[in-house]
Amino acid sequence: MSKSKNSNFLLKTPKGTKDWGGSDMIIRENLFTSLTNIFKKHGGVTIDTPVFELREILTGKYGEDSKLIYNLEDQGGELTSLRYDLTVPFARFVATNNLTAIKRYHIAKVYRRDQPAMTKGRMREFYQCDFDIAGTYDLMVPDSEILNILCEGLDDLQINDYKVKLNHRKILDGIFEACGVPEQDIRKVSSAIDKLDKSPWEAVKKEILEKGQSEEIADKIWTFVQHSGSIREVIDILKQSRIDNATAKQGIQEMEVLADYVEAFNIQDKLKFDLSLARGLDYYTGLIYEAVTAASAPPKNANELKAKSKDEDASEYVGVGSIAAGGRYDNLVGMFSNNKSIPCVGISFGVERLFSIIKQRTDMSKLKSQHTDVYVMAFGGGEGWNGFLKERMHVANQLWKAGVNAEFLYKAKANTRKQFDGAEKSGAQLAVILGKEEYPEGKIRVKKLGQGEENEGDVIPVDEMVSFVKSKLQVDAVTESFKNL
Amino acid sequence: MSKSKNSNFLLKTPKGTKDWGGSDMIIRENLFTSLTNIFKKHGGVTIDTPVFELREILTGKYGEDSKLIYNLEDQGGELTSLRYDLTVPFARFVATNNLTAIKRYHIAKVYRRDQPAMTKGRMREFYQCDFDIAGTYDLMVPDSEILNILCEGLDDLQINDYKVKLNHRKILDGIFEACGVPEQDIRKVSSAIDKLDKSPWEAVKKEILEKGQSEEIADKIWTFVQHSGSIREVIDILKQSRIDNATAKQGIQEMEVLADYVEAFNIQDKLKFDLSLARGLDYYTGLIYEAVTAASAPPKNANELKAKSKDEDASEYVGVGSIAAGGRYDNLVGMFSNNKSIPCVGISFGVERLFSIIKQRTDMSKLKSQHTDVYVMAFGGGEGWNGFLKERMHVANQLWKAGVNAEFLYKAKANTRKQFDGAEKSGAQLAVILGKEEYPEGKIRVKKLGQGEENEGDVIPVDEMVSFVKSKLQVDAVTESFKNL
Repeated sequence: MSKSKNSNFLLKTPKGTKDWGGSDMIIRENLFTSLTNIFKKHGGVTIDTPVFELREILTGKYGEDSKLIYNLEDQGGELTSLRYDLTVPFARFVATNNLTAIKRYHIAKVYRRDQPAMTKGRMREFYQCDFDIAGTYDLMVPDSEILNILCEGLDDLQINDYKVKLNHRKILDGIFEACGVPEQDIRKVSSAIDKLDKSPWEAVKKEILEKGQSEEIADKIWTFVQHSGSIREVIDILKQSRIDNATAKQGIQEMEVLADYVEAFNIQDKLKFDLSLARGLDYYTGLIYEAVTAASAPPKNANELKAKSKDEDASEYVGVGSIAAGGRYDNLVGMFSNNKSIPCVGISFGVERLFSIIKQRTDMSKLKSQHTDVYVMAFGGGEGWNGFLKERMHVANQLWKAGVNAEFLYKAKANTRKQFDGAEKSGAQLAVILGKEEYPEGKIRVKKLGQGEENEGDVIPVDEMVSFVKSKLQVDAVTESFKNL
Repeated sequence: MSKSKNSNFLLKTPKGTKDWGGSDMIIRENLFTSLTNIFKKHGGVTIDTPVFELREILTGKYGEDSKLIYNLEDQGGELTSLRYDLTVPFARFVATNNLTAIKRYHIAKVYRRDQPAMTKGRMREFYQCDFDIAGTYDLMVPDSEILNILCEGLDDLQINDYKVKLNHRKILDGIFEACGVPEQDIRKVSSAIDKLDKSPWEAVKKEILEKGQSEEIADKIWTFVQHSGSIREVIDILKQSRIDNATAKQGIQEMEVLADYVEAFNIQDKLKFDLSLARGLDYYTGLIYEAVTAASAPPKNANELKAKSKDEDASEYVGVGSIAAGGRYDNLVGMFSNNKSIPCVGISFGVERLFSIIKQRTDMSKLKSQHTDVYVMAFGGGEGWNGFLKERMHVANQLWKAGVNAEFLYKAKANTRKQFDGAEKSGAQLAVILGKEEYPEGKIRVKKLGQGEENEGDVIPVDEMVSFVKSKLQVDAVTESFKNL
């Protein structure tokens, strides 16, 4: 971070954002490719929506987190805000385009004015990779496929120690009702319960009391939300509790159906039914889930570190949080649409958080961000030597036209040392060398790089250069996608 | 566009933005792939920068167009704005990260509060595909490679009728100086001249007079800026004019060097040296260029149409404008950096404008946005028939695990007709069919789709299903990128 010459501002990206380059980009692009392949495998098609939406579209969808939405300045015209997630824009997309069913994936940036923790992948601008299924289908069928996609995605990225916590909004809301929480307070109590992964019960109970509930209600809630285990175990506990609430009963019934399906997909061991999982967002209506790893939790002495910290960055005292999360939201499209409600269920992978886990285990020195295969050089010197720049350009151009990745040194007269330095930096495997005497005679030298001085390479006729180089590289033909359209 | 149920706002994207889906996404993704391949071929590495920058970074870089910058609301903290292009963020990136040389490409969205013309690809949110070379090199060498990339990019996209207009800021500024324009007025006069592609000389002259120049100055300028032709032709005209200005002479000398290099790349026939090309942006310091096609120009009766138009969208009376543009900017990095100035040159492809040209010539019905290969079905019926949902899930999961793209109908009990409808919609080539009698006996049917009723397919053992299907599909193994990290 340095000061600019002409003014006093810091030469940096805005708080909570960062530049990406070099090996980091390779890891992130591999991550996108890995997830995209899975999304396509399950019949997904991709869409794109604007980075900002009409402000009213986002209003009333995010509960307490609505305060984190970035607004664009009112410069005359419509009031707009940066998207907070890809889910609300997706529901708006389904409604705007009058769709009745779609499986879509969307990999794009979202924005939250939150306290950043950069090394933990908690950013103000970050990528999400979302897969959602919209459409009216049989109970828990798309839901279980989404859970399967979640596990497949994390398995493919070799995130080995994850667990997917599950809960059901109908069960949770039913418990709150049965414990005596008035309907209008349910979301507030729910968001307090959601903090049980980071805070002890005492602190959460205090928040529930502050939110106007009695001690008796709070203690009753605790008898439920402390339970977790396999889906079938927690269903048994709930049944034994003889909870007398229609909503909860419906949720329990749905979880029984789910238990069957996740066994058909053989992912039951990765799941954990956790009655304290609540998820902050308002729009969920059914099954909810989030994947966590050891890195998700804050350090044991988080509060101590937080008290001491003077840094703007919270990385020291927070964990990476959930690495993927989602749920069912059956009413969101209906909020935008006159005629119909389209049930939806989906999953969102937190790219930056996954990135920070993958980066830690990766040998960055092995990653190659450049794709150059051939470095074109000229060797010569002495009287009348002009450096063969135009000749190097001509030869490089022949390689490019043939789909070969090639570079040359941007100097009119370039000495041998500098050209080899350039070649090494480019990572090229082959050098194509124009010799002062050889080239005017129609000959050119092709040499494998990194094999020392004694390797002199092959001298071949210039007009065989392209095919010779290609056979050495086994270069695939450049994608012809457009020629087939 | 429909009204929402719960409030009165229009259910749409903000003005000048749009949703992307279906075949449009395929064309755009092919376009990205095509350009990315070329960028990699020339040694490019990719980077990513935030969608918004500190406001001061963008200030004073865009001349008259600065009014089009989107600001984020001041919600406490830093003042930020959405990026207007990828060039200024790139220069900031080079300075922030203390680079001395990089060839980078960047494909990302930029934002301009301009009058939109949606069907012509003039949007408020749009993609740019940029390639830039930063570093100190010999005169015109990277510049000519950038022009080569520009032509290669458009050729690969089969944009056949384009022309690349060239000019040089030193020549243009030297002409203005020689004609008597005071230094502080040069950029203003320059931006008037830039309108000569859309307006007749009379209108441009009027603007020059309004900007405080005398009639004599304006007329002198006209004797120069009306010339265009091959690089060597226009150099001859300029030399014959005996222009007495050191800056212009330096520019002419540089163009002579360029003439040699573009011949080495064999792109001279696609270039047109046009002394009226000025480009609006402040930061250019040397060679400037923009590619145009027949679709770039507005319709002949544009003014008439404009007068009549009541539409918010300007599509009717504007052309698509330039489809790619760029130039040399040697001082931009220096504006951000204490120690050094890093010379840069680059090109930006206007994706949405290229898209609108490509879409017009494309048979959209041939594009397939879904990638499903296999549809898993169950055939049965009668007493005790449960629809084999869990069995279909189990079989689909085996296919997914083996990297095969598969789907099944999300119904517990699905009739044959609905399953075939689902298969057809998915575009799958193969059906894997679980028969009520066959499957419990360990047998499964694989059938090529779209070949009529008489084709019964092959009945094979269940445990040979995956390899049989893969040999039918010749599916490539799923990318193993992450396993090699």
